[in-house]
Amino acid sequence: MIPSPEQIAFAHKLADVSAAAIRPYYRTGLAIDDKLDASPVTQADREAEQVMRALINTERPDEGIIGEEFGAEREDADWVWVLDPVDGTKAFITGRPLFVTLIGLLYRGQPVLGIVNQPIAGERWLGVPGQGCTLNGEPVTVSGISELARARVGTTGPQYFSIGGLAEFNALQAEGRFTVYGGDGYQYALLATSGLDLVIEEGLKLHDFAAVAPVVIAAGGWMTDWHGEPLQKGSVGRVIAAASEALHQQAVAAMQNAE
Amino acid sequence: MIPSPEQIAFAHKLADVSAAAIRPYYRTGLAIDDKLDASPVTQADREAEQVMRALINTERPDEGIIGEEFGAEREDADWVWVLDPVDGTKAFITGRPLFVTLIGLLYRGQPVLGIVNQPIAGERWLGVPGQGCTLNGEPVTVSGISELARARVGTTGPQYFSIGGLAEFNALQAEGRFTVYGGDGYQYALLATSGLDLVIEEGLKLHDFAAVAPVVIAAGGWMTDWHGEPLQKGSVGRVIAAASEALHQQAVAAMQNAE
Repeated sequence: MIPSPEQIAFAHKLADVSAAAIRPYYRTGLAIDDKLDASPVTQADREAEQVMRALINTERPDEGIIGEEFGAEREDADWVWVLDPVDGTKAFITGRPLFVTLIGLLYRGQPVLGIVNQPIAGERWLGVPGQGCTLNGEPVTVSGISELARARVGTTGPQYFSIGGLAEFNALQAEGRFTVYGGDGYQYALLATSGLDLVIEEGLKLHDFAAVAPVVIAAGGWMTDWHGEPLQKGSVGRVIAAASEALHQQAVAAMQNAE
Repeated sequence: MIPSPEQIAFAHKLADVSAAAIRPYYRTGLAIDDKLDASPVTQADREAEQVMRALINTERPDEGIIGEEFGAEREDADWVWVLDPVDGTKAFITGRPLFVTLIGLLYRGQPVLGIVNQPIAGERWLGVPGQGCTLNGEPVTVSGISELARARVGTTGPQYFSIGGLAEFNALQAEGRFTVYGGDGYQYALLATSGLDLVIEEGLKLHDFAAVAPVVIAAGGWMTDWHGEPLQKGSVGRVIAAASEALHQQAVAAMQNAE
């Protein structure tokens, strides 16, 4: 199912209001202990989700919401918005303009639209599988690189893998060209823009992958779980995104060869 | 020795001309094999260094140059400019706005001025020890955090350490609050802006630390080699930067406790 033009326009509106809520907190109070409820990142996260939820409840009252901060409403609706206001908390609290707001739309559990929005740099990726991917309105695509030896590999950090998962990741990265760490959801947007060729992560939740999978797929990439199954509501959060089908197959095979 | 106002103004000019040389290449040809001489990152690197060298040779002909790409000229002069046009090559070729241009000034081998310039985000840090540190003209300082358990730790990636160095880093990061990977020279600028509290790296060369050490120190931080010795021309490239003297001491002690 393809989202309507009204839903696409509405997704942009969600990105606009969340960005306005987040920006004032960026690089403020960086030395504050952000475990406190009143820390800038917590306030940015909550306020951004609140303004997005209010907008959905007012303008799209039949559609559901699954939010990282405030949980689910009308979760069984056909159309459900999945919101992660500040993906990349550590990027935010160390002052890196790599944190992103993730806005996904599910139709009966399948991701059909994604926005990755970076409010400081003013970068917005929109992906609708079947309709392409854009960065600030300009079409972007994956690199199409098909050989693992040429692949630029990304993951947020080795500490986010399980022991077995890290062994699989290490088997893969040994065959890639190089690995770059850091970036959370921003990495998938870079993959959709030919900047990275493979992103492998573990422990993602629905709100982490619901928006980025459509961006990658709309840009011509492949994104599945580690067994090659499509990502959907209920998927375990082991994800692999690749710049081509051939690269995806080689990466899955390399991981399965881990000891 | 404190640099003259003319030298400080000239350092800004170097940052301006290098940024203009680099910007047109950002996120172009991302799928190109950048081992080729004509790759965008190689062209950006070389052109930016060439314009800076030309400016020094024209306007400051008595001062020396040590450049990452084209080597040394008048290396024995009292004042020597140390240039790294694109620090964070992998950030550049994956499309992250975290690569930086590093411009340092040595007086008889001691770093006395540093600029960290991010041409895409338009962020410029200037540090002159004794005269403070600024980001786009506004004063910035380190967080001053003094307890290792509260410290946000940064390093570019585990793959850049030797085996022994990684053991020391791991002993340290186990006691910190969390570790964020990625960032190269940008990390030291974040430390100078209260975004990170500790940065530990190995294998840095003079052109990697000559500009960032003055930025950290001018912002109120501590930056030395792993033995606590000041960084200067000839230092081995194991560096540690900290948001306070107390934190620096705890970090050095934690690393010395590595098995």
